[in-house]
Amino acid sequence: MKVAILGYGTVGSGVFDVIRENQEIISKKVGAPVEVKYVLDLREFPGDPVASVLTHDFADILNDPEVRIIVEVMGGLHPAYEFSKQALESGRSVCTSNKELVAKYGAELIRIAQEKKCNYLFEASVGGGIPVIRQLIRSITADEVEKVSGILNGTTNYMMTKMREEGVAFDVILKRAQEKGYAERNPAADIEGHDACRKIAILTSLAYGKQVDYEDIYTEGITGISDVDVAYANELGMGIKLLGESYRKDGVVYAMVAPKMLCSDNPLYPVNGVFNAILIRGNKLDDVMCYGRGAGKYPTASAVVSDVIDAAKHPNVNIPILWSEEKLVLGAKEDMVNRFFVRVPVSEKEEAKALLPVAKAVALAAYPEEIAFLTEPMSEGEFEKKTENLTVFNRIRVEVK
Amino acid sequence: MKVAILGYGTVGSGVFDVIRENQEIISKKVGAPVEVKYVLDLREFPGDPVASVLTHDFADILNDPEVRIIVEVMGGLHPAYEFSKQALESGRSVCTSNKELVAKYGAELIRIAQEKKCNYLFEASVGGGIPVIRQLIRSITADEVEKVSGILNGTTNYMMTKMREEGVAFDVILKRAQEKGYAERNPAADIEGHDACRKIAILTSLAYGKQVDYEDIYTEGITGISDVDVAYANELGMGIKLLGESYRKDGVVYAMVAPKMLCSDNPLYPVNGVFNAILIRGNKLDDVMCYGRGAGKYPTASAVVSDVIDAAKHPNVNIPILWSEEKLVLGAKEDMVNRFFVRVPVSEKEEAKALLPVAKAVALAAYPEEIAFLTEPMSEGEFEKKTENLTVFNRIRVEVK
Repeated sequence: MKVAILGYGTVGSGVFDVIRENQEIISKKVGAPVEVKYVLDLREFPGDPVASVLTHDFADILNDPEVRIIVEVMGGLHPAYEFSKQALESGRSVCTSNKELVAKYGAELIRIAQEKKCNYLFEASVGGGIPVIRQLIRSITADEVEKVSGILNGTTNYMMTKMREEGVAFDVILKRAQEKGYAERNPAADIEGHDACRKIAILTSLAYGKQVDYEDIYTEGITGISDVDVAYANELGMGIKLLGESYRKDGVVYAMVAPKMLCSDNPLYPVNGVFNAILIRGNKLDDVMCYGRGAGKYPTASAVVSDVIDAAKHPNVNIPILWSEEKLVLGAKEDMVNRFFVRVPVSEKEEAKALLPVAKAVALAAYPEEIAFLTEPMSEGEFEKKTENLTVFNRIRVEVK
Repeated sequence: MKVAILGYGTVGSGVFDVIRENQEIISKKVGAPVEVKYVLDLREFPGDPVASVLTHDFADILNDPEVRIIVEVMGGLHPAYEFSKQALESGRSVCTSNKELVAKYGAELIRIAQEKKCNYLFEASVGGGIPVIRQLIRSITADEVEKVSGILNGTTNYMMTKMREEGVAFDVILKRAQEKGYAERNPAADIEGHDACRKIAILTSLAYGKQVDYEDIYTEGITGISDVDVAYANELGMGIKLLGESYRKDGVVYAMVAPKMLCSDNPLYPVNGVFNAILIRGNKLDDVMCYGRGAGKYPTASAVVSDVIDAAKHPNVNIPILWSEEKLVLGAKEDMVNRFFVRVPVSEKEEAKALLPVAKAVALAAYPEEIAFLTEPMSEGEFEKKTENLTVFNRIRVEVK
């Protein structure tokens, strides 16, 4: 079984290594040896074992009938989309870790794979090494999915963990994360929630079988979270996590990416550092959570190779994935219900109490000029309306169990 | 697609309900309606919707060619084994939650299913609603499994959680768990670790592809854990959990069921109450953990029905499961390496320190007559030898990360 890898970056070289180093176990699972015949990259890698299989031309791969599986780990939309489409149209299976591409063109590529009796597989596109895609597609099949909620971005989870542990400001932690290589030099995709947004779009599309456009998902990053918020969360025994969430209520699907305060009995609460975790709630199964390394060369490569194994075990057979191109219209953000944590000046304490359904008030000696409240559950629209005349220092959603 | 359910107990009636209530989603996944045609039980259920499909004779099911899938949720070895074997030999798929049967005869039944081009599926046999079996068989396929470690029994985890929270004695908690229905009147299978042992035997067989006999696994329950041990664990910031564990080292597979002290950074540490969780370590993937309800009518039934869906989607096709009848000879218990927590009389403090590689000493004001040590990692054999002349009040293994 011959494989071609498109892109010899971090994940691509990881896939190359995993296929070589775990050869024996992989052959056993497939029932035949799996071998990398080509690696496509524009660069040269003199002295690297990849040199002997390197090509700069995608046509070499497309014209070689021996190649049955193509691993697309180039990232970005183009030419990854064109290459993936051509590969599928030629009847070859494609395995990818490219979340942008899956979120944008997943439904179409899945349809083409179905028509051509091959497979478009993307386990590594969400949660790195965590097998959450298979869990949704193939394990949690007897249930109506009621909710998906996940810590989907390791960079921001690392930052929130450090802010909590050390009580220092956002900018300090961001700088340190960049120095350690946990955050990019341009960290916007992570800290503004775009990465998590694409991932929850993919999971929601799979959970409900229709195309969720990530542009439709209200997305708020962690840039507004300060050390003051973290101090309140600590006082409340809660943790702040950037969550990608979607749920179905009365037949309508809602989705959002935003930081949330979690109680210590929430299974996502103890998920710290660069780890990711995804909680899925089925109507019969209740909560199942999967936890692991959401990124990293080898965990991600392992997930890609598990797809290669699946593709190799299903030559000329499409593994059905229910994700149609029909657009899923999400419910309005204004109707989503949460508790809120809200900080206002002490001078507006009585006004806030009169306006909001307050469940609990919190004052910290270190910040005598302000007071914070936890509200009862209320809709986003209601919260916005009731706080429009208040001076709100910050507000963070609080997970309602 | 017609299904027969053997046994209308808790899980059986759950399967009956799930197939009826989630009909729409299940039909969509299978591509055809799935319907229960028979339920086998010796009892009568007048007025229950099951009455119209109830039979007392397995032959009714075996003689009906319309029935393609048989759900075996009778429990126990006999006649569950004979019925399952007959069903598979007739080319019908069997889906089960029966861990005793899977642990004992799984390899044989898997072979028969393979020969007859049908399926023997057992997702619900370990971890209830947690899809850990599929994770091992179908998701974590690109990796050499280095370790499997799980909280596999909800009753004991509930008890250990309560002992920790309330600081009361084992017998008090056991009585309360029995009153609440979390523990059986005869609790031996749970508290002596036999249930966890069967489950880790199944997981280990799947992880390494050969038959692990549960009789070969050293098994220690939680009956030896006292409130004094829990007090020390609290002082150390650790939790005591009953773990089923197996790992491969230098080509040899080791397995054990025993209570272990876990540090707070272990992903299994925050798993409390009746929840189960299983951590799998791959050589490339690192740690993946899956968490959920390890028991309960609907979570378990949902897992069984997910197998029914798989069976329905694969008529006359065997989904390969690598678990041969060849016996896997486990490494000797004496060679297994752990840190140990050990409590000795104060009078033997110096002797213990001279004998053991002590990493840390702990004294509690409430127990002035004794002292506890955490050792450096050492083998079971070495520990036994070095402590044979000491008065050991108790010793608990400590997880080495």
